[in-house]
Amino acid sequence: MKTPYYAVIFTSILNQDSEGYLAMAEQMEGLAKEQKGFLGIDSARNEIGITISYWKDEESIKTWKQQNDHIMAQKMGKEKWYKSYSVRVARVEREYGFRL
Amino acid sequence: MKTPYYAVIFTSILNQDSEGYLAMAEQMEGLAKEQKGFLGIDSARNEIGITISYWKDEESIKTWKQQNDHIMAQKMGKEKWYKSYSVRVARVEREYGFRL
Repeated sequence: MKTPYYAVIFTSILNQDSEGYLAMAEQMEGLAKEQKGFLGIDSARNEIGITISYWKDEESIKTWKQQNDHIMAQKMGKEKWYKSYSVRVARVEREYGFRL
Repeated sequence: MKTPYYAVIFTSILNQDSEGYLAMAEQMEGLAKEQKGFLGIDSARNEIGITISYWKDEESIKTWKQQNDHIMAQKMGKEKWYKSYSVRVARVEREYGFRL
């Protein structure tokens, strides 16, 4: 991806009962991919879950944050699934890789 | 953490034979924590591994990149363990959370 662009770093710890979470997470990932300015997503979970979504600019991030179904998912997340979470919005300044 | 600060987003895919990788990764995490400007680290791995380390400034990131044992680990990583990886250096502009 061409820098600069933006990354939303979402880290979370789930409650013991996380019924319905996976389906919601997959649905939100599908929906994010349809948004304007979406560039990509990386996700992994062990004790902690990390999802990083990449975006063209801050405007795209704000629009996605306020998308209706996404607002509903955020609300359900707080009420049911997440023990805790943090969101960090970061500007990617440079990147390099190996055999990409 | 008080913004702005920096995040190094390291995503990787391992080769099938990753013997010795876990021990190295743990050693590097311990070493990172001793570096000047280190603020924290989050890590998870499924198909893809994601490690995000947080740093006070770009100077701290450059110093850590060039630390001797870390250079050796990077070299071993390319030769033995990583099928591919990417490194993104990003400036964290804002953060918020829930029950942190």
